[in-house]
Amino acid sequence: MILLDEAAEMLLDWNNILVVSHASPDGDTLGSATALMRGLESLGKRVSFMCADKIGSKYEYLFDGIRMECEAYDHVVCVDVADPLLLGKAYDSLKNNVNLAIDHHGTHVPFGKCEYVDPSAAANCQIVYELLNIMGVVIDKPMADCLFTGISTDTGCFKYRNADAKTHRIAANLIDLGADAAEINRVMFDTKTRACVEVERKVMKDMEFFHGDKIAVIAISRQVVADAGADESDLEGIPSISRSIEGVFIGITLKEKENGVWKASVRTIDPVDATEICSRFGGGGHKGAAGCSFTMSCEEAKRLIVAECDRYLSAIGL
Amino acid sequence: MILLDEAAEMLLDWNNILVVSHASPDGDTLGSATALMRGLESLGKRVSFMCADKIGSKYEYLFDGIRMECEAYDHVVCVDVADPLLLGKAYDSLKNNVNLAIDHHGTHVPFGKCEYVDPSAAANCQIVYELLNIMGVVIDKPMADCLFTGISTDTGCFKYRNADAKTHRIAANLIDLGADAAEINRVMFDTKTRACVEVERKVMKDMEFFHGDKIAVIAISRQVVADAGADESDLEGIPSISRSIEGVFIGITLKEKENGVWKASVRTIDPVDATEICSRFGGGGHKGAAGCSFTMSCEEAKRLIVAECDRYLSAIGL
Repeated sequence: MILLDEAAEMLLDWNNILVVSHASPDGDTLGSATALMRGLESLGKRVSFMCADKIGSKYEYLFDGIRMECEAYDHVVCVDVADPLLLGKAYDSLKNNVNLAIDHHGTHVPFGKCEYVDPSAAANCQIVYELLNIMGVVIDKPMADCLFTGISTDTGCFKYRNADAKTHRIAANLIDLGADAAEINRVMFDTKTRACVEVERKVMKDMEFFHGDKIAVIAISRQVVADAGADESDLEGIPSISRSIEGVFIGITLKEKENGVWKASVRTIDPVDATEICSRFGGGGHKGAAGCSFTMSCEEAKRLIVAECDRYLSAIGL
Repeated sequence: MILLDEAAEMLLDWNNILVVSHASPDGDTLGSATALMRGLESLGKRVSFMCADKIGSKYEYLFDGIRMECEAYDHVVCVDVADPLLLGKAYDSLKNNVNLAIDHHGTHVPFGKCEYVDPSAAANCQIVYELLNIMGVVIDKPMADCLFTGISTDTGCFKYRNADAKTHRIAANLIDLGADAAEINRVMFDTKTRACVEVERKVMKDMEFFHGDKIAVIAISRQVVADAGADESDLEGIPSISRSIEGVFIGITLKEKENGVWKASVRTIDPVDATEICSRFGGGGHKGAAGCSFTMSCEEAKRLIVAECDRYLSAIGL
């Protein structure tokens, strides 16, 4: 573990730099990478970019105007990559060649020659913001947009517990520097694909309630997903639907995978511990969000997990 | 129009103060009132509270621990009241007796003997935050919770265009002062009543698309609302559903009122101007959100407004 000042000095010393985002890229890893690349280019360095997976179309604006003139890199920086396995298909070529990893995950698995990890940062973009300032980069509007994107997406638009006073102060500074906060938030949080809406229409119509409406169950079959023309990213928000209903302590989303497997996403609110329920079926996770899998029919899986939730809620007097 | 310093001096001079919120109270008018009452009580003053309508249960925590020991008030302060008509049933008794009105609406209709109006404030609670500071109030955790509630709710959890750098800086200060931002946001934004979900299930099932899916229409009949056991506050979020669908430029929500009237809420995204559509039917509003009313059947109202939107979109080449 090095200091952020040391990370800044290293970057200032390098000239041909590969910046790497994690697989299944989100707003924070892409915001971190693009802000850092812009900052490095502003200092006259050459950069290039790597990510194991395709960039979603809604994130394309982050890359507008980055030159990426680095043809042969001599240093590698990973941003927001919690585990070397998240390098994806670049794992074999990069795993021993990462010079610097900058991350904010409490679960970070070290893999870089040098590492700067700050789990207190709500978003990795908060770290990159400070890094750019230390490096003497003049943060322009495109950089501010990239950084704001990561901070807003990783905090659920400042809704989650990780959004603290520092997060809001950095957001304020980025708005002063030109970040188009409202438009970024609209694209990230107020835009649902038509396919997503079609899936929601169907699963909400069929949502079931149990245990005096304290348990809500949503099932998403492969047929529903196919009929709507949806893909994985269209389904991201669905597990949070059932838990958000007043009076519901356990929201269960059963999603059909390949080969007859149904994956359960269990979301709970205090005092219910989702891991206690999922661990009965060989799964795990966090207190408020856990998962497990069933190789059986949807009805049978639903019967089993609802029975377990029934028992759990009765045992704690709910 | 007076200065905020003058408003602070007036309040410091008074001792028995009635604080008034607007009818159909929301988080900002209630957060403003409760923070102000707490601040005044901390300075040894007696306060009481008035609101024409019932306070939603999710806002009750704002009032916890306020003593309200004022039996006969001699001064009246209105907070976040844009128009004297919003005093509701207190209009007749109060309209000539409001000593001070503190508001942030650009459409504010003057009615107080003294007025402080700052339309640049994203939430009225931002003004109250500054007012309490000028008055020398030590902002404690309950006051910070009240102020954060107003700021978060009036900005859609910092999502809308009104949330600027100042908004974020005040939010940061309130978190430092103890505001439980995450819990407030969960209650305000991640909790839907069962009745709200039932209405959403029904209207999403029946949502219609027009003009190559660029227009989406939702209709909410009184029957649907009654069947779900819903009230007005359960329907707040529905007009934003249709506009949030990718590709939709105009989201229309038709809501049945009494006596065969259907009220249309029109939400648009750039470059569509909702006021241009609603003004054709005698309505008005803002560019992104406007409304108008129809006294006819739902089908007929839908036909008329969709035809107008059709024409509008074709005229601008969409």
